Amino acid sequence: MSFTEKKSNTIVLIVSALVFFSSYTLADFSPEEKARPSPYLELTRKIMDMGLREGRAYDILQLITSVGPRLTGSSQAEEAVKLIHQEMHSLGFDRVHLEPTRVRHWIPGTVMEARIRSRIQGIQSLSICPIGGSIATPSVGITAEVLEVKSFDELHRLHEKAKGKIIFFNRAMDPTLLDTFRAYGGAAEQRVRGAAEAAKAGGVAALVRSLTTSLDDYPHTGLMRYDPKIPKVPAVCVSTLGANFLSDALNKDPSLTVNIKLDCQEFKPIISHNVIGQITGTEMPEEIVLVGGHLDSWFLGTGAHDDGAGCAQAVEALRLIKEMGLKPKRTIRAVMFMDEETGGTGGKDYAQSENRKQETHIAAIESDRGGFMPLGFGIGGGPQTVKHIQQWKALFEQIGMYWLRAGGGGVDIAPLAKQGTVLIGLVPECQRYFDFHHSGRDVLEAVHPRELELGAIAMAVLAYLIAQEGVS
Amino acid sequence: MSFTEKKSNTIVLIVSALVFFSSYTLADFSPEEKARPSPYLELTRKIMDMGLREGRAYDILQLITSVGPRLTGSSQAEEAVKLIHQEMHSLGFDRVHLEPTRVRHWIPGTVMEARIRSRIQGIQSLSICPIGGSIATPSVGITAEVLEVKSFDELHRLHEKAKGKIIFFNRAMDPTLLDTFRAYGGAAEQRVRGAAEAAKAGGVAALVRSLTTSLDDYPHTGLMRYDPKIPKVPAVCVSTLGANFLSDALNKDPSLTVNIKLDCQEFKPIISHNVIGQITGTEMPEEIVLVGGHLDSWFLGTGAHDDGAGCAQAVEALRLIKEMGLKPKRTIRAVMFMDEETGGTGGKDYAQSENRKQETHIAAIESDRGGFMPLGFGIGGGPQTVKHIQQWKALFEQIGMYWLRAGGGGVDIAPLAKQGTVLIGLVPECQRYFDFHHSGRDVLEAVHPRELELGAIAMAVLAYLIAQEGVS
Repeated sequence: MSFTEKKSNTIVLIVSALVFFSSYTLADFSPEEKARPSPYLELTRKIMDMGLREGRAYDILQLITSVGPRLTGSSQAEEAVKLIHQEMHSLGFDRVHLEPTRVRHWIPGTVMEARIRSRIQGIQSLSICPIGGSIATPSVGITAEVLEVKSFDELHRLHEKAKGKIIFFNRAMDPTLLDTFRAYGGAAEQRVRGAAEAAKAGGVAALVRSLTTSLDDYPHTGLMRYDPKIPKVPAVCVSTLGANFLSDALNKDPSLTVNIKLDCQEFKPIISHNVIGQITGTEMPEEIVLVGGHLDSWFLGTGAHDDGAGCAQAVEALRLIKEMGLKPKRTIRAVMFMDEETGGTGGKDYAQSENRKQETHIAAIESDRGGFMPLGFGIGGGPQTVKHIQQWKALFEQIGMYWLRAGGGGVDIAPLAKQGTVLIGLVPECQRYFDFHHSGRDVLEAVHPRELELGAIAMAVLAYLIAQEGVS
Repeated sequence: MSFTEKKSNTIVLIVSALVFFSSYTLADFSPEEKARPSPYLELTRKIMDMGLREGRAYDILQLITSVGPRLTGSSQAEEAVKLIHQEMHSLGFDRVHLEPTRVRHWIPGTVMEARIRSRIQGIQSLSICPIGGSIATPSVGITAEVLEVKSFDELHRLHEKAKGKIIFFNRAMDPTLLDTFRAYGGAAEQRVRGAAEAAKAGGVAALVRSLTTSLDDYPHTGLMRYDPKIPKVPAVCVSTLGANFLSDALNKDPSLTVNIKLDCQEFKPIISHNVIGQITGTEMPEEIVLVGGHLDSWFLGTGAHDDGAGCAQAVEALRLIKEMGLKPKRTIRAVMFMDEETGGTGGKDYAQSENRKQETHIAAIESDRGGFMPLGFGIGGGPQTVKHIQQWKALFEQIGMYWLRAGGGGVDIAPLAKQGTVLIGLVPECQRYFDFHHSGRDVLEAVHPRELELGAIAMAVLAYLIAQEGVS
């Protein structure tokens, strides 16, 4: 769009277009809700002004991603713990400390290769990566013919053809679903249980189409689980372009073979740490409102959206509250959980820690759906809590958000549910998330500074409101 | 985010997280509106399924951007006219034709240089580009000291210091505004009128901070207007990093000089074309519902968001309606306007064409705010029309949109207002738009295929609804 002239000799901006267009800041909440004024309206505006002017969430994310990928047990993950601990110190948060958590120590290795050998097309490399937790192949790799299936049901039907084959799970995420998380949920079993199902059918390895709505040459990893009753077979993800190529190649030459080489390794679990800092409450310091994300990532990219973004937003939320000079009645605490991706131990150990005994977590807000434009909060704790929080809708309108409704939080805060904590999840726009998720594309440059900051602002406002007003 | 296990030996997806998280597809419209069922609900779902499955809007955008930038009067713009004309033919649209429009023929040239010479920092290049319509400098360039101002008021106050200087307009877009179009509106006068104000004050050139919320080294161009009563001086935009550097350098050495070289040229206007195709209405063929965007762009990048996206969406909207086998009562027409950026002549000539005499344009829907996630439609034509269109809210909820409210369309369709046409603008998420707008960053890769497609789907649905049901 542009400016243009309205009359031949007069320089006039098409102001009308701008005025029409700029009316979107007030989200479309119903009139009754708009009518209710809030003493927090000006405060929200001030937090937003400071956040958008300074844009510090992106600087914090830069710090977190500067160490590279942060796989649990890796030296980079430990470096990230150190850096974010220092950062919270520098920002003057209270009680900045580490809490131990025992984490998985699996490494992806340096060999991750797959080659098609076809009568018709010769040799062709595929872009693959190990699925998190996979065993290695022998050093010469595993070479076998390939059975392509779209579902476990299909594999079960073709059971006699599976023996000795590499099982190629090639069901795409459903592109017609608006909610890409639902599309992910509809395809993810292939990655999580593919190796176990392949082995059960007599297959020698699992080769899984990457979980992304994007068509490109990046493999996307993630978690898998072996079935302890069945021998383990190696499992890899292949890029979506690679999956399409292989499927076409199989049509042309069903007897082609694929050679897969991996040298991943599993070591004994080690002790890592959750990183914690807070603004101690002035009236009810033992009542906690938690904001958090997870510091660990997979081994590809630098985990910028997943979940450097959530960590950066949690730290920034506290920084904004502190810089505004606010003194919350209840404690507002930022927690960077370690090991969400490979077992969720950080969240479990946090919830079970002796340190929790003197504390009551009234609410926990997690951001673990990427640093995109925030749309709303999903709120646990029942209808009364949802209604209580909905009284603040007008405040979140100001931040460009559209809804506050029943929902929940992320994996890290889930173990707090037993204590009656209200779990809340920040929900951003989701069309782009799986382009990056668990892949080499998930780097700092994929995150937009303003979108990231708006999420941090939303978390700051909600955490402060709950610290002052409670959850019901 | 990830999957994890719930109990030690059981492989369980954290389904709860997915279910909580996936509740966002139903936008937060008020209950009364949700209760109203629509016979078009299933149709909308089908259009959406087809659109998201095939994702053709991105292919069309690829075609448009394949020619490069499409400055009015350039051979690339003519090539784009040819290609999109062919494309609409291939898609089997009715009455595919060109309509002439007389467009400006200014070229940016190949020399666009600015160098600081400072006692303290030596020589430093700045990343600049001419503002659209600027005159050239002499071939040795213009060398002068620099006066930095943040507003025309400040320039007027410093009037006696301006003589013989390069006037450096360095007011940033306001980062605290959620609506980046408002922030743009608050700073754009510097680019549009900077040269005229500089000349009026005795300055020798205008050097304007690029209009973007991003801090990078890309200059962003756009339109300017000279004052016919005052001699013309050259005008350039400098990248935001360049503007910050220059401002710092001026603090260190106020007597530094800048040399600016440009070889842009203005030729006589030439005849170009709007490109038109349609699905002719079965009952009221002379009543038109227009969908459109503009085919021309500036000379940097390939005008992917501005406004290849709008053109691709308009063509895709018609393709979806046609492929679905729908036979609209009224004519649905796609128009790719030529010359929005340098004068808006395409829109004016379209509205005034003899061909319009037999036609009534009941509504025109423009997409010219980038190919990002669509949030709503801004609707002209008064409260009754807005209310009429709001009855279809539930349909747009399905597409992930949040609102239908009073607003308006773009520059190209504005001239139709005189004929009583209801002007409607597609409004997408706006945080990223000005990162790309009028700069070398506005390329195909900056557009997300699913976000682009959702806009096309929204336009298809709204155009079809109006073609069947009218506007009030």
